[in-house]
Amino acid sequence: MTYCVGILVDSGLVMIADTRTNAGVDHVSTYRKLQSIVIPGERCVLFSTSGNLSISQAAVTLAKHGLENPETKKIDTLETVPTLFEAAHLIGRAIRKVHDRHGADLEESGVAFEVSFLIGGQIKGGDMHLYMVYAAGNCIECGSEAPFLQIGEHKYGKPILDRSIQMNTDLSDVTKIGLISMDATLRSNLGVGMPIDLAVLRKDTFQLSVEHRIEDNDVYFKDLRKRWSTALRFQSLLMKRK
Amino acid sequence: MTYCVGILVDSGLVMIADTRTNAGVDHVSTYRKLQSIVIPGERCVLFSTSGNLSISQAAVTLAKHGLENPETKKIDTLETVPTLFEAAHLIGRAIRKVHDRHGADLEESGVAFEVSFLIGGQIKGGDMHLYMVYAAGNCIECGSEAPFLQIGEHKYGKPILDRSIQMNTDLSDVTKIGLISMDATLRSNLGVGMPIDLAVLRKDTFQLSVEHRIEDNDVYFKDLRKRWSTALRFQSLLMKRK
Repeated sequence: MTYCVGILVDSGLVMIADTRTNAGVDHVSTYRKLQSIVIPGERCVLFSTSGNLSISQAAVTLAKHGLENPETKKIDTLETVPTLFEAAHLIGRAIRKVHDRHGADLEESGVAFEVSFLIGGQIKGGDMHLYMVYAAGNCIECGSEAPFLQIGEHKYGKPILDRSIQMNTDLSDVTKIGLISMDATLRSNLGVGMPIDLAVLRKDTFQLSVEHRIEDNDVYFKDLRKRWSTALRFQSLLMKRK
Repeated sequence: MTYCVGILVDSGLVMIADTRTNAGVDHVSTYRKLQSIVIPGERCVLFSTSGNLSISQAAVTLAKHGLENPETKKIDTLETVPTLFEAAHLIGRAIRKVHDRHGADLEESGVAFEVSFLIGGQIKGGDMHLYMVYAAGNCIECGSEAPFLQIGEHKYGKPILDRSIQMNTDLSDVTKIGLISMDATLRSNLGVGMPIDLAVLRKDTFQLSVEHRIEDNDVYFKDLRKRWSTALRFQSLLMKRK
């Protein structure tokens, strides 16, 4: 399993992903599901993947190598698309290209064509955006009512996001809440595993202000999960009784 | 969908269940999933159900009417079984009886034989117990490491339980945390719906100290969900930064 979350607030974007991948019963390993394409001062595109690894890897490769835009007839890559919207559509086309190549064979082998992407960031001339791209190549954009999108094992980590994230939440608090959401998932689903990749992009900077891999022994993360559990326990005790 | 949770701590048992049932696409209605059998001073048995309503209703009816115990050859009912353990096994036998009657026909109609029960409480002469009974009629007992069991849509409401419930938590705090767990689920899954049924059984009392249906306009519950959201937001802001 996988858990990736992207949170887009007024001041920027936080993306967090686990790294556990299990390709077969006895083969559990680590793979970077959160990746970035940065051209300093011009664009910073972050994306994370969930689902069948062979599909998402192939789609990423195709999107990096470039695919023809059916309207402009130009070759688009994630380094050249003019907008985040087009970047999301490029990922969508890449997914469908993989489907064209392998979809029928996968189906014949009883393997579901399951894949989804989060893609977000900012390209000069445009605002920040965050999209979720589905296996059919279509996508939705993150809105301000619930300023986050999740892929993979999303349920355990959703309540904290529902309750704590608002458009004006400070980016360092967003980071903390995102990590708590990840921690809730790690605790409950063994298929989501450490280490965790974290990236933070402040608005209009076009470069990552944080790009960090949190390992098992990370002092900050251990401290955060401990303090949060303690805080929750006390909070529930301290709430005025009726 | 359904969400039911049972929490068993040193001082007693709290059970909470939603009431939403959808039997078919356009038929969403309300059904009491949390029920109790109380013989004051002698036994208090609480149970809640998840899964196919026709299966769980039939199993409840059979367990109330009585089924032969294959070992003692006596007819057991939920009012007469000598222990909670036997009560859980009675529910299990009732489920299998429903399976004997309808299992093949359901399968032929493409309907999965899905049902699960939480059953807990206390019968004089024994301790408090809480069990989860599966569709196969087997059951597991709640342990002290994670003193709660959930059926139905359990993921959204699990993190708060994981982090906040301990064996020595006060029963009124357990109630509050259980309601927050239910609220997290209500917010995230439209298939889990108000009103909510709540029952609280203090140890060695053999009668319910709380038996309450929380309606949409319940002032306490509205206040609780509001205060909790506010508390979480402040908590995440107040946690010392590093």
